[in-house]
Amino acid sequence: MAHILVLNGPNLNLLGTRETELYGTRSFDDYLVELRSTFSGHTIDLVQSNIEGELINALQGAIGNYSGVVLNAGGFSHTSVAIRDTIAWLSLPVVEVHISNIHAREEFRERSITGAKCVGVITGFGMDGYRLAIDHLLTRGVK
Amino acid sequence: MAHILVLNGPNLNLLGTRETELYGTRSFDDYLVELRSTFSGHTIDLVQSNIEGELINALQGAIGNYSGVVLNAGGFSHTSVAIRDTIAWLSLPVVEVHISNIHAREEFRERSITGAKCVGVITGFGMDGYRLAIDHLLTRGVK
Amino acid sequence: MAHILVLNGPNLNLLGTRETELYGTRSFDDYLVELRSTFSGHTIDLVQSNIEGELINALQGAIGNYSGVVLNAGGFSHTSVAIRDTIAWLSLPVVEVHISNIHAREEFRERSITGAKCVGVITGFGMDGYRLAIDHLLTRGVK
Amino acid sequence: MAHILVLNGPNLNLLGTRETELYGTRSFDDYLVELRSTFSGHTIDLVQSNIEGELINALQGAIGNYSGVVLNAGGFSHTSVAIRDTIAWLSLPVVEVHISNIHAREEFRERSITGAKCVGVITGFGMDGYRLAIDHLLTRGVK
Amino acid sequence: MAHILVLNGPNLNLLGTRETELYGTRSFDDYLVELRSTFSGHTIDLVQSNIEGELINALQGAIGNYSGVVLNAGGFSHTSVAIRDTIAWLSLPVVEVHISNIHAREEFRERSITGAKCVGVITGFGMDGYRLAIDHLLTRGVK
Amino acid sequence: MAHILVLNGPNLNLLGTRETELYGTRSFDDYLVELRSTFSGHTIDLVQSNIEGELINALQGAIGNYSGVVLNAGGFSHTSVAIRDTIAWLSLPVVEVHISNIHAREEFRERSITGAKCVGVITGFGMDGYRLAIDHLLTRGVK
Amino acid sequence: MAHILVLNGPNLNLLGTRETELYGTRSFDDYLVELRSTFSGHTIDLVQSNIEGELINALQGAIGNYSGVVLNAGGFSHTSVAIRDTIAWLSLPVVEVHISNIHAREEFRERSITGAKCVGVITGFGMDGYRLAIDHLLTRGVK
Amino acid sequence: MAHILVLNGPNLNLLGTRETELYGTRSFDDYLVELRSTFSGHTIDLVQSNIEGELINALQGAIGNYSGVVLNAGGFSHTSVAIRDTIAWLSLPVVEVHISNIHAREEFRERSITGAKCVGVITGFGMDGYRLAIDHLLTRGVK
Amino acid sequence: MAHILVLNGPNLNLLGTRETELYGTRSFDDYLVELRSTFSGHTIDLVQSNIEGELINALQGAIGNYSGVVLNAGGFSHTSVAIRDTIAWLSLPVVEVHISNIHAREEFRERSITGAKCVGVITGFGMDGYRLAIDHLLTRGVK
Amino acid sequence: MAHILVLNGPNLNLLGTRETELYGTRSFDDYLVELRSTFSGHTIDLVQSNIEGELINALQGAIGNYSGVVLNAGGFSHTSVAIRDTIAWLSLPVVEVHISNIHAREEFRERSITGAKCVGVITGFGMDGYRLAIDHLLTRGVK
Amino acid sequence: MAHILVLNGPNLNLLGTRETELYGTRSFDDYLVELRSTFSGHTIDLVQSNIEGELINALQGAIGNYSGVVLNAGGFSHTSVAIRDTIAWLSLPVVEVHISNIHAREEFRERSITGAKCVGVITGFGMDGYRLAIDHLLTRGVK
Amino acid sequence: MAHILVLNGPNLNLLGTRETELYGTRSFDDYLVELRSTFSGHTIDLVQSNIEGELINALQGAIGNYSGVVLNAGGFSHTSVAIRDTIAWLSLPVVEVHISNIHAREEFRERSITGAKCVGVITGFGMDGYRLAIDHLLTRGVK
Repeated sequence: MAHILVLNGPNLNLLGTRETELYGTRSFDDYLVELRSTFSGHTIDLVQSNIEGELINALQGAIGNYSGVVLNAGGFSHTSVAIRDTIAWLSLPVVEVHISNIHAREEFRERSITGAKCVGVITGFGMDGYRLAIDHLLTRGVK
Repeated sequence: MAHILVLNGPNLNLLGTRETELYGTRSFDDYLVELRSTFSGHTIDLVQSNIEGELINALQGAIGNYSGVVLNAGGFSHTSVAIRDTIAWLSLPVVEVHISNIHAREEFRERSITGAKCVGVITGFGMDGYRLAIDHLLTRGVK
Repeated sequence: MAHILVLNGPNLNLLGTRETELYGTRSFDDYLVELRSTFSGHTIDLVQSNIEGELINALQGAIGNYSGVVLNAGGFSHTSVAIRDTIAWLSLPVVEVHISNIHAREEFRERSITGAKCVGVITGFGMDGYRLAIDHLLTRGVK
Repeated sequence: MAHILVLNGPNLNLLGTRETELYGTRSFDDYLVELRSTFSGHTIDLVQSNIEGELINALQGAIGNYSGVVLNAGGFSHTSVAIRDTIAWLSLPVVEVHISNIHAREEFRERSITGAKCVGVITGFGMDGYRLAIDHLLTRGVK
Repeated sequence: MAHILVLNGPNLNLLGTRETELYGTRSFDDYLVELRSTFSGHTIDLVQSNIEGELINALQGAIGNYSGVVLNAGGFSHTSVAIRDTIAWLSLPVVEVHISNIHAREEFRERSITGAKCVGVITGFGMDGYRLAIDHLLTRGVK
Repeated sequence: MAHILVLNGPNLNLLGTRETELYGTRSFDDYLVELRSTFSGHTIDLVQSNIEGELINALQGAIGNYSGVVLNAGGFSHTSVAIRDTIAWLSLPVVEVHISNIHAREEFRERSITGAKCVGVITGFGMDGYRLAIDHLLTRGVK
Repeated sequence: MAHILVLNGPNLNLLGTRETELYGTRSFDDYLVELRSTFSGHTIDLVQSNIEGELINALQGAIGNYSGVVLNAGGFSHTSVAIRDTIAWLSLPVVEVHISNIHAREEFRERSITGAKCVGVITGFGMDGYRLAIDHLLTRGVK
Repeated sequence: MAHILVLNGPNLNLLGTRETELYGTRSFDDYLVELRSTFSGHTIDLVQSNIEGELINALQGAIGNYSGVVLNAGGFSHTSVAIRDTIAWLSLPVVEVHISNIHAREEFRERSITGAKCVGVITGFGMDGYRLAIDHLLTRGVK
Repeated sequence: MAHILVLNGPNLNLLGTRETELYGTRSFDDYLVELRSTFSGHTIDLVQSNIEGELINALQGAIGNYSGVVLNAGGFSHTSVAIRDTIAWLSLPVVEVHISNIHAREEFRERSITGAKCVGVITGFGMDGYRLAIDHLLTRGVK
Repeated sequence: MAHILVLNGPNLNLLGTRETELYGTRSFDDYLVELRSTFSGHTIDLVQSNIEGELINALQGAIGNYSGVVLNAGGFSHTSVAIRDTIAWLSLPVVEVHISNIHAREEFRERSITGAKCVGVITGFGMDGYRLAIDHLLTRGVK
Repeated sequence: MAHILVLNGPNLNLLGTRETELYGTRSFDDYLVELRSTFSGHTIDLVQSNIEGELINALQGAIGNYSGVVLNAGGFSHTSVAIRDTIAWLSLPVVEVHISNIHAREEFRERSITGAKCVGVITGFGMDGYRLAIDHLLTRGVK
Repeated sequence: MAHILVLNGPNLNLLGTRETELYGTRSFDDYLVELRSTFSGHTIDLVQSNIEGELINALQGAIGNYSGVVLNAGGFSHTSVAIRDTIAWLSLPVVEVHISNIHAREEFRERSITGAKCVGVITGFGMDGYRLAIDHLLTRGVK
């Protein structure tokens, strides 16, 4: 049984309430129910924060408590050297997820400062990216 | 009657106490009295924070509670993709204000990552920029 | 009583006749009537030219005749070192106005070579930017 | 019957008198006779100016008077945001022509700021580029 | 039942034979057996080529024959405008996969010219990326 | 009588079948009939390939067999030093054609690495660009 | 007697527990005991936070309470315009310290946005950098 | 006896009236008297314009009428491809002069687009640069 | 006895027939006779292709059949990440040769993407570079 | 007992005689007396040269004769690949010192090409930087 | 009576012996005779060195011995931060001279790192630049 | 019989004594014995200096005394405009050699400012590069 931390960064608490033509009408909490159902037998916790440093706190706190992390750092992915350093310091596997395709938007989104220190990056598949990320973590055998 | 949120970012709580030759001896609280007097009949609330994520929280919380936002994100204007994303998500009009002229300082201040998603930007007029911003919001007919 | 020179650069004589979905159906001459009415008691003159050097001539000629200048140099704002030098030479306060938000368009529009030498820049508020600019000049006490 | 405006920018009045090994010994006026003969049945007017703003004036004045424009803005093609804006504003088709191949000279000539808003660009074919441009305009069915 | 085309670009035929400490000792043919077993009930075809244009041919040929494409264009991902154009032209969903994490290698690998026109990009998960890509295609309901 | 080689690069075999709102519903083969009719009395051969090296082969093979070449190298125009070198080596006049206006799309399309070694470039006139290119070659007196 | 504030940014609370081959097995709390012993007769307070804005709060709060500040802003040193502005506003001397040599790592670490407004920067000497920083502050005569 | 054209660009008509601490209290007309006295026996004509195209007109008109040109194109030196092209076309020697040292100001002033086609550039010597320029032209033996 | 593969990329089949003032009148086949004579006792095979992927195929096929490779990838040296990856994967020593001096031509030729993964690069010595490359391979003791 | 080489680069022999408001009125020789007094029991030798290669000579000569080096390479720090290579070759610890804060001056001073190969860099503390550097070397236990 | 130091950098000792079509057949020593004759009544000393540091030595040694310096630092002008620092430190006026026009050669020659700290720069007038430089120094009234 | 000057720049006197795993245990003097033996019948002189200007002196002095030069300018290859100018001035063939592969190290080593003016560059073959360079010079027929 694996313990997975889903760590959502800035503005991801807004999912389902705004720009629904782009992001759909589903809130992340609603999606989380499905995600837990898909991976029944495993624990999936969600932490969301708009504050860069609280994401760092959550990443640091994951050691000893989780088998792996799914990180969507939102806009911080392209600017945060500090989160990058935390990931580099972690012994846990971290998978980066982006809902939209970062290669298809503004040029400054193509570079992922945080993703460079993750196992890998999944970008462009909507919320389904979270399922793929957890699926891969389990395939790696985290527990 | 309009409800305006004035959202001040890092270091703007210091106005009036330091570098008074550059920024004047007036605190923002003192100026706020004048601002409210100028726009009597409307509500003007002030939120100040040095924490990027709390500015995001305040922007998100403005929906349903305010007719428009005057945002001076200070140094975050030039670095924060996360605040930019919040503004893009908002349905409220946001006007960006800078006390000094961002085109006349270090080259990295000329680009406003956040201003690109605002209605517009007012820069270089000292505290008077706040008054102009609210004036414009009222002219747009926010209420 | 203040004497204000509104100095409009290339293509601004076209306002109201083309791309009306973007710029509205109002000509600047029509707007000028309203502007003069708003600031009755003050003189507002308009000079428009598509020629860079004539804008320089008008700026130079403003000394002794005007209390302040509202400048919308259009496309020259992003390329003209010569106009920048004129503004730096002037003893009059110059406020730069752009109808659209220069931070939200092509990257080369984000930099304002001329705005760096102005009091400040107002960008993105449509024609209302002219009113805000004059309002600020009067608030500064020009006369 | 189409009315075509050929709009020549800086230095093109010198054609045939200097650097004849590069540009030939023929003046543009001489070539214009041939051009009119080739497209007899249509009107071809020529405006030449070394002044950027007069090119803008001519472009603006073309509305209602011409079916299409052939523009050789010379050195302004690589620097003029103002002419670019005029073309974007025009409802007439504009074809950009360069006598020499802009991709084969200094690096700063490869980018055409004005051409980005034209129907297309013809570069490198000597004076014959004007004929091709008019030929295309007629093929489009301008009248 | 879905028909999936797995399209492998340059050097991917070498998997399992070289740099086994980095890419493992498994050949792609061997992995393909497992992949087909995982997605029994669906067709998975493999095309591999070291020639950029043959990848374009295969992408073009996929229309009408496949429900979706999993593309690992290898080194061409960072240089090929031509493949990018093909993907943009396709009506089929294309998912880009990279075995190693492109954000963690040379700077020129961070940009994916081809990925910008795909549904999304999966990078860094070894061969498991192919499984995730097909899984997502099926989740989208391709058939 | 001239012998013209029309050399089409990647994806141009798709013309007329996809993105018809952008590129029209006409295939190049269909257009070729018209082109040959327009230039009856001359030979026009078509070679299309998605493979960069086959374009090089065709260019090399044109010597002795053709009077001139019309080249639309598609996406390779912006990346191929190898094709550029072939053109530089050729003694035949080569005219580069692009269907869309390369100055009006992504920034990386503005530079034509291959066009720098051609006689000139015609860009943005749809399929009509091919006609203009051949017209110019005949005007040059190739035979 | 001087009052020194040691202000540690993101991830520095992890010292001694991870990557011990690089950063050693000593926690900062443990090192702090030695530091206080070295500078007995002076007060040394430690504030650590992973949140950018809390570092700003601490810097602002240092006025009136401390004689000088030793700042290791970690990853924020390379990105934070906001902290830079706070330091510029402070009347206290601030010395920047980095444990590793910022000139010997990724290129983006070479620039210190915050260090530009400090008295100076000490980088690469491990924890001993803190001792040198305090030593210098005392040598300057802060009290 | 030589005929020299001194061609002054934008803002140089302001010399002596503004920023006198930087440029002195002498007008160019006043200086011209001295210049003519220094080079008695030669003709020195002055043309000043703030309009780029009029400078081009004057340069073109110099052929046949002058032995050499002293050009201070002011801000146009750093932006005008059009003036550069005129100088390249001229058969007359042109010497570029700048009153202030272009290597000691904003970075964009260091490059002289026009100077690249002149005989040489004299920069930083105040008005004395004009005298040196004429002196050199006479030394070259222009007449 | 060593088995050497000489792998020539695009346009090198043209040697001796064109631009003879630059590349000489000798074909590579003719030179190959001399090369084999110089290194009698060893096998030298030549593969030439204008197709990037066929060069990759040839490189892959060299394993087990050759002791070393002399590669002149022509224009692909400056653009091909794919060939670079093949060389990195190879266990054979590869020496890159350029006939002309890549440091003395266009700026984009100075960087060798492929050469970075070779043993070394020999550039500028005409055909003699091939001899030097083989000479070095033999000196290394390949067999 | 440690043997320390203080190696001063270009212009540092001028200390105390010029720009005294910036660098103080003290010569380095005078400061050296204090430095030796502070570190009595250790040997401190000074070598100063304005010649880049003599600094290299001195660094090479330090092996076997000194326990550590304090290097202020002045302007060479930002340009000298050669000195960088020498430091990389040395087995001695080298500490780089700058009197002024390199992060607070021209942009080209922020990068230290030489400092990247040193133990660390101390910048901005005036002459006191030398004392801190030696202090650290002794703390490291050099002897 | 003024004492002028002419300071020539690398390769200027070769004047007159090589590339005579570009630099003429006159050696600098020969030209110096003429220069001294032109400025009889003043002292002109020449120092030439190919060593950057010796130029620094000579500049430092000029204080107290010379009224002004004419500096042609050759290739060092574009690379030497160290010489720039020396000039900034000097109290003597320094005039930079280049024989060829630095704005008309390779792009890296357009920037003069040393010229930014000189009174001004004279470039492109051949040896006559030295005469102009001294002429200006005398006009300034150095003695 | 040819007279060859081998000119070694900074740090090459250290060969064999340090970083022997990278550069081997052989000193250049020892290698020189072998080199002379290989090319018996020819003269090979060695000059080594860490001083940029002495390399220039040696290059200048080579005229009349040597048939050709083998230059390893070490770190100066990437920074020295002055040495580049000397080589351009020389009538002797100069071959540049680098022991390590400059295309496989830091990005700033890929550009050879000096190599652009040499006959060619040999990089990456260890000391054997010197032998290849001399071999080529003899093949050219220098004497």
